[in-house]
Amino acid sequence: MTVTPTDPPALAYSTENCTVGRAMDVLGERWTFVVLREVFNGVRRFDDMRRRTSMPRQVLTNRLATLVEQGLLRRVPYQVPGARSRHEYRLTEKGFDLYPVLIAVRDWGDRYLADPGGSPVAFEHRGCGGEVHLAMVCADGHTVTDPRDVMTRPGPGAHPAS
Amino acid sequence: MTVTPTDPPALAYSTENCTVGRAMDVLGERWTFVVLREVFNGVRRFDDMRRRTSMPRQVLTNRLATLVEQGLLRRVPYQVPGARSRHEYRLTEKGFDLYPVLIAVRDWGDRYLADPGGSPVAFEHRGCGGEVHLAMVCADGHTVTDPRDVMTRPGPGAHPAS
Repeated sequence: MTVTPTDPPALAYSTENCTVGRAMDVLGERWTFVVLREVFNGVRRFDDMRRRTSMPRQVLTNRLATLVEQGLLRRVPYQVPGARSRHEYRLTEKGFDLYPVLIAVRDWGDRYLADPGGSPVAFEHRGCGGEVHLAMVCADGHTVTDPRDVMTRPGPGAHPAS
Repeated sequence: MTVTPTDPPALAYSTENCTVGRAMDVLGERWTFVVLREVFNGVRRFDDMRRRTSMPRQVLTNRLATLVEQGLLRRVPYQVPGARSRHEYRLTEKGFDLYPVLIAVRDWGDRYLADPGGSPVAFEHRGCGGEVHLAMVCADGHTVTDPRDVMTRPGPGAHPAS
């Protein structure tokens, strides 16, 4: 594939071994999360998303509309010289705040669903360059390494079952 | 609802305002994650899950079968005196390792989709009692508070787009 300097760098890489997509296939339904993954990767334009995801046109259209409606993405106009005006999709703050979910899904997908070559994607701390992962931390400052050390209890909004 | 001492405590609380279910409605498809939420809450038996989730019987049956097949849940036999033997569902290690995903989904759901009363559920550090949240941390030891400070780059398993 030819990637021009103004294209998002992610366009140069295959999505075929994406551990986020694989994990979401297990956890529910892949498409919505795959669309978000594209935007997090800087892939903001309909045609690029379609080529990378192989989503049917109508499904992609619907998912983008839902994500705009839910306030996770916003439409921003752009114009390529000689072409008609179009719009691309950017994350809102509500969308950006899904980054921990994306990383959590990727971390799990990498552990259980990755190809032998390892993860197709890494998350980098801007400026510092260190790789970003998720950690479970408690209010008393402990890092929780064993998920068996986490338990659920009713929160402030819990109300009795009817 | 009557909850007996041997019932999981979660049975006493409503799932109607669950922020995990709401978040997964936005992010894809709620049912698989709702089943996992039940098991994380200690709700392991078909009839309890059905009552709490209002899932159609066949949908719940299918989701449980898929989760067993994918290695996230395992079936464990039990017998109530006077009744025939049945099985309940427990998390495998692969399933338990989804805890960060569950917490990430809950954290986001709490921020954007909770009722005014707040979150219906809390995660507690066993023994310590501190509330557990997710943090993005980088390999150099920084805690990343702004998701805009995270960027993606190709990982070791990335290969070129065809």
